[in-house]
Amino acid sequence: MTVAEKWVPSVRYRRDHLLILDQQQLPHHTVYLNVTSIEHVWDAISKLKVRGAPAIGIAAAFGLVLWSNSEKDNQLESFLSKLQVQRNYLASSRPTAVNLFWALDRVVRAAQKAVSVEDAKEKIEQEAINIQTEDENTCRKIGEYALSLLQDGDAVMTICNAGAIATSKYGTALAPFHLAKERGLNLSVYANETRPVLQGARLTAWELQANDIDVTLITDNMAAHTLKTKNIKAVIVGCDRVAANGDTANKIGTFGLALQAKALGIPFYVACPLSTLDLRTASGEDIPIEERPEEEVTHLNGIRIAPEGIKVFNPAFDVTPAEYISAIITEKGIVSGNYKDSLSVLKKENS
Amino acid sequence: MTVAEKWVPSVRYRRDHLLILDQQQLPHHTVYLNVTSIEHVWDAISKLKVRGAPAIGIAAAFGLVLWSNSEKDNQLESFLSKLQVQRNYLASSRPTAVNLFWALDRVVRAAQKAVSVEDAKEKIEQEAINIQTEDENTCRKIGEYALSLLQDGDAVMTICNAGAIATSKYGTALAPFHLAKERGLNLSVYANETRPVLQGARLTAWELQANDIDVTLITDNMAAHTLKTKNIKAVIVGCDRVAANGDTANKIGTFGLALQAKALGIPFYVACPLSTLDLRTASGEDIPIEERPEEEVTHLNGIRIAPEGIKVFNPAFDVTPAEYISAIITEKGIVSGNYKDSLSVLKKENS
Repeated sequence: MTVAEKWVPSVRYRRDHLLILDQQQLPHHTVYLNVTSIEHVWDAISKLKVRGAPAIGIAAAFGLVLWSNSEKDNQLESFLSKLQVQRNYLASSRPTAVNLFWALDRVVRAAQKAVSVEDAKEKIEQEAINIQTEDENTCRKIGEYALSLLQDGDAVMTICNAGAIATSKYGTALAPFHLAKERGLNLSVYANETRPVLQGARLTAWELQANDIDVTLITDNMAAHTLKTKNIKAVIVGCDRVAANGDTANKIGTFGLALQAKALGIPFYVACPLSTLDLRTASGEDIPIEERPEEEVTHLNGIRIAPEGIKVFNPAFDVTPAEYISAIITEKGIVSGNYKDSLSVLKKENS
Repeated sequence: MTVAEKWVPSVRYRRDHLLILDQQQLPHHTVYLNVTSIEHVWDAISKLKVRGAPAIGIAAAFGLVLWSNSEKDNQLESFLSKLQVQRNYLASSRPTAVNLFWALDRVVRAAQKAVSVEDAKEKIEQEAINIQTEDENTCRKIGEYALSLLQDGDAVMTICNAGAIATSKYGTALAPFHLAKERGLNLSVYANETRPVLQGARLTAWELQANDIDVTLITDNMAAHTLKTKNIKAVIVGCDRVAANGDTANKIGTFGLALQAKALGIPFYVACPLSTLDLRTASGEDIPIEERPEEEVTHLNGIRIAPEGIKVFNPAFDVTPAEYISAIITEKGIVSGNYKDSLSVLKKENS
């Protein structure tokens, strides 16, 4: 059974089932999967129906809740032992997603403090809810700080999808737009389509349009002309990893956008939950750049758009040096200037 | 009848027919149309089988030759009168292509100097051959000047297709690569795919690959990362119009590429036949930017890649201010610095 709705968060918990937005069907169909079992959650994660590190973690946590709620064992020790098995099962749905393990382990640790199966079930549910709520609060705070840098009526550019559908709610780079909408402010957004995988065209355009936010789609190479001619007041992007010195790895195209924004005197902001700040990585030079299959560039919707046998370079990410970043916006405040010192202080204060 | 070949110019004249490279079938099929009548030439131009202003002009000039060669009228006056009708017919194949009218009128003026139908037929043929030869010489000279700015082994980036298939031979921005190949030099090329119409992926990648030139395809938003990490020595692009002050209108994405090259300390060159230099246009601000249908952005190969009803901005060109252009390469030499004075002198010396 599927449910079509206009706008809800990426994952909704309904005690005996979850509603998970099926991102594989975007932008053509807005469908919420009715997910009733842990196996179904495993499937949704492994088949990328839910994507974005925070959203994956939330879905997995509630996957354990679905199992827990339906488990009949009333012996605490064997219940917890089975929980660990279920944790390992869900952890295998996407083996490289750090947030997935982090969320599952939080739930298991909470259950381990229980004095009975009933207590464990309550703690499991509560921890999953906490994870989702904390993520929503993080995103809302990032949105609030980002909004403080913008004015009603501003036009802003973004790339990829650092959006609500990748998190609990609001997103990171897209948080100020959703928050502005809640508050009756009007921001307009130019979304770069984000080749090769088109997260901008498929996800950001859809997500903002679904929330009645004024969004205009452009191809990535229209950014400079758009920045210059459309009175863009800021560029805001998400991040995959921020190094200790502020260098930021994000979706391919981010670095070029930063260079263009700087040349045109437009502020360039990175929205960064503190969980994405990696103080063990000294600078961008230490961040490996994943290269992905050539077919992402040579084909679209399975149809070849380039000659047979053509050589392709397909880096999935790039690194924007800190000098091109006007400010980094976290849930605990805005940092700019000397990132090395200020990011380190911020992280230590909040760990 | 069609003929498949590895590498020939865009248009070849064979007295009773033309071979026209069918660019609509690129990059999937390399097919030369066997064009035997002026009606067939009209069709090839109007259906974009031949594209690129110089190539269109050449095809049209030879279209008049095909008509002339088969015309039985031996009265000069009525022959010339019919020629004018045919000229007007071909001029209707793409009403906005300036090179089309220019080439047709050159052929008609040459014929008007004839003393007999036989003489007119010779003059018509000779003028078409001249147009093609002059274009080839122009492109070769641009290639030579461009090569003087490069070293054996250099990697160079380009966008769109300012290539051999858009001209008689060699192309403009791609001329140094073809010329280097002739001379046994090794240049490698990074071709931006050039959304939304993908001239880089479909045409430049194909054209350079067909001539065994080392070419690597990237999406447009990979330019900055590639410029920084692949030891790119220069960016070279074509142009649609160069203003008196050096401001250059070219395919969308060119301006962004120029900003990125400048930020990374990489020279940015514009390959510009003097015919494209428009001294009546004072600066880039006077160049209107065509906006094209939304479907170019929202669809690929007829398949929708963005949500229904999404707003789109689709400028086909952008303007690169002269300050971001390291040099303008013409068939009469390389210009840099004070474009306003030097371009004006160059144009006047050669008009």
